[in-house]
Amino acid sequence: MDHVRLSDAGFSVIILDQSLLPLEEKYIELETLEDMVGAIKKLQVRGAPAIGIFAGYALTALSKQQCRPKAISSCCGASGSSDEGFMQILQDQGKILKDARPTAVNLAWAVDRVIKAVRVEMFRARQEDPMRLNANAGARRLAEAAAKEAKAIHEEDKAMCKAIAGYGLEEIKRVCEETGHAGPIGILTHCNAGPLATSEYGTALGPVLLGSEQGVEFKVFADETRPLLQGARLTTYELQKAGVDVTLICDNMASTVMKQGLVQAVFVGCDRVAANGDTANKIGTSAAAILAKHYGIPFYVLGPSSSIDMNCATGEDIPIEERDPEEIRSKFYEKPVAPEGVRCFNPSFDVTDAELISAIITEKGIFRYPYSDSLTVFSK
Amino acid sequence: MDHVRLSDAGFSVIILDQSLLPLEEKYIELETLEDMVGAIKKLQVRGAPAIGIFAGYALTALSKQQCRPKAISSCCGASGSSDEGFMQILQDQGKILKDARPTAVNLAWAVDRVIKAVRVEMFRARQEDPMRLNANAGARRLAEAAAKEAKAIHEEDKAMCKAIAGYGLEEIKRVCEETGHAGPIGILTHCNAGPLATSEYGTALGPVLLGSEQGVEFKVFADETRPLLQGARLTTYELQKAGVDVTLICDNMASTVMKQGLVQAVFVGCDRVAANGDTANKIGTSAAAILAKHYGIPFYVLGPSSSIDMNCATGEDIPIEERDPEEIRSKFYEKPVAPEGVRCFNPSFDVTDAELISAIITEKGIFRYPYSDSLTVFSK
Repeated sequence: MDHVRLSDAGFSVIILDQSLLPLEEKYIELETLEDMVGAIKKLQVRGAPAIGIFAGYALTALSKQQCRPKAISSCCGASGSSDEGFMQILQDQGKILKDARPTAVNLAWAVDRVIKAVRVEMFRARQEDPMRLNANAGARRLAEAAAKEAKAIHEEDKAMCKAIAGYGLEEIKRVCEETGHAGPIGILTHCNAGPLATSEYGTALGPVLLGSEQGVEFKVFADETRPLLQGARLTTYELQKAGVDVTLICDNMASTVMKQGLVQAVFVGCDRVAANGDTANKIGTSAAAILAKHYGIPFYVLGPSSSIDMNCATGEDIPIEERDPEEIRSKFYEKPVAPEGVRCFNPSFDVTDAELISAIITEKGIFRYPYSDSLTVFSK
Repeated sequence: MDHVRLSDAGFSVIILDQSLLPLEEKYIELETLEDMVGAIKKLQVRGAPAIGIFAGYALTALSKQQCRPKAISSCCGASGSSDEGFMQILQDQGKILKDARPTAVNLAWAVDRVIKAVRVEMFRARQEDPMRLNANAGARRLAEAAAKEAKAIHEEDKAMCKAIAGYGLEEIKRVCEETGHAGPIGILTHCNAGPLATSEYGTALGPVLLGSEQGVEFKVFADETRPLLQGARLTTYELQKAGVDVTLICDNMASTVMKQGLVQAVFVGCDRVAANGDTANKIGTSAAAILAKHYGIPFYVLGPSSSIDMNCATGEDIPIEERDPEEIRSKFYEKPVAPEGVRCFNPSFDVTDAELISAIITEKGIFRYPYSDSLTVFSK
């Protein structure tokens, strides 16, 4: 069941409340714009692609509400009686949604995409009857256009994840064949790049979930991923739910499980890939890559090709954002674990050098080192 | 001020309650055997050498209590009127202390050492007057012998830590000179091997504390050291208190600070060193060593020469103890961070391969790779 979806009636969005995971698995129904914005702010829905999908369905639900007799928008004074009025309300709603998390590129992208689709439908209606320049498509038809676009965003994400999963699975099977590895395939993963952050399959967890469906046995080690614990909270939850053998470890235990021969490959997601293959991802990723190299274990980055930023020459062009020190000192804890006033360094991600990455696996295929050659297909 | 010491009157032991750190700094006075055992069990005193020092003072205080008029032992029925009676009570108390933490080798070692010193004093008294075979030394004299031995244990530990600190400081100064490094010296440390676990200076933190006293500027990065957070809770506390510049990081951030050139050396303690130099220490140590090697940073193990176990040929002979999974899943947290029933792998330490270790620094000097040569001085 999709963890972000439109309700059957179409007037609301239903999401799995990620802020309650892993202890409580509760779907919530969001009908007002206020609740939708709140869901983004409270991290009830998280993960860039998932937020994009959510925004699409949110605008769809709000559009359908405009079709109700005597619809009164919760946020805008404009009437829904004309296409222009409909559009005005939708645009205002889209802006408020975008403002819920201004740095989330996928959120703005999805909102703009739905609004554009509705506008195209509006113009199409006018063109169908060129004699009546002010012809209205009508709220129902425009809401349908929004729904269609939202669905397309969701389906495209699923297809992309599935393609990545397929390539990743192919690669790990090849590695096991070449090295003569038999039995369950050990995978180490860092942070969470699974279905919750995207749609089904996810990116880094894609090969594992797809392979498991096909009867390939995996044994996954999930780094807990301090300080925000996405591995402990989300990756274990997703894999346990999918029936995949998963073991939670602290980040500093990866060396031990690698040394014991329990890891055949490392799979991680990515925030941004530079033109030379240097990859920014959740803090701790570069350590996993260095350990993997030390132990001769292949290390893979999995993500949509849209993560490849040809405007960034190398990892040095990617700024490293620092987060609140209290995430290290007190967040999640019963009481602070370090003295008052102790300085904490809390970079949110690190850059893994290209030469540590065995391959970058996207929906467009598998790209290998040297990336300054292989990634040139993405040059504009 | 010593964090484990005999009270001025000598009838009790005063310790800094480590279980309250870093939020509360409270010295507690322990007078009964029951409270002393409790202090060990509740980790109010921790760190192998510190527990040994504590046990020595505990037996001293209990011995002095036997000198009080009409002393009634809290645990034993025997009277304190003869040397034999004194000895019987002391032995029973020693056994109860040892049982407080059966795996702590230093605890048993210190208890046995104090008891032996008292027994020697007993025999010495008899020898002084060979005509009276049952001559008593008297409780006061025996308690003095206990006190003297306890003091010796403490002083020896201080001298050992100071020697290690001296060798470590000499080494890091040499490295900085050779590499032309100017300005504050960046040190990464893992877990806690500071004064709290030993006496003043500690082992891994020794060069930093000694150097700081001499005006050498350090900038220490303390790994938080999941899952028990000794780095966050204790190392930052000790360094902050000593006025040393310290920054707390999550274990997975070590790669980033090393990459940024902020670390000139890694200093860690050790649980056990095999004859070939393979070193068992707190989980995560081997990862720090591999990262250091990747970035070309020297990695040092600092500890007493008693940690070198020539009966262990290599690290493979050192068993890896697994601890309670709840330390990862729920300890310290407001609520569990991973789903119910998720498997956790929680090895308490890992083995760092000898070739990753630049030198092993003990109170007897600096030993270098290949350790199968340099450590042979410790062969029996």
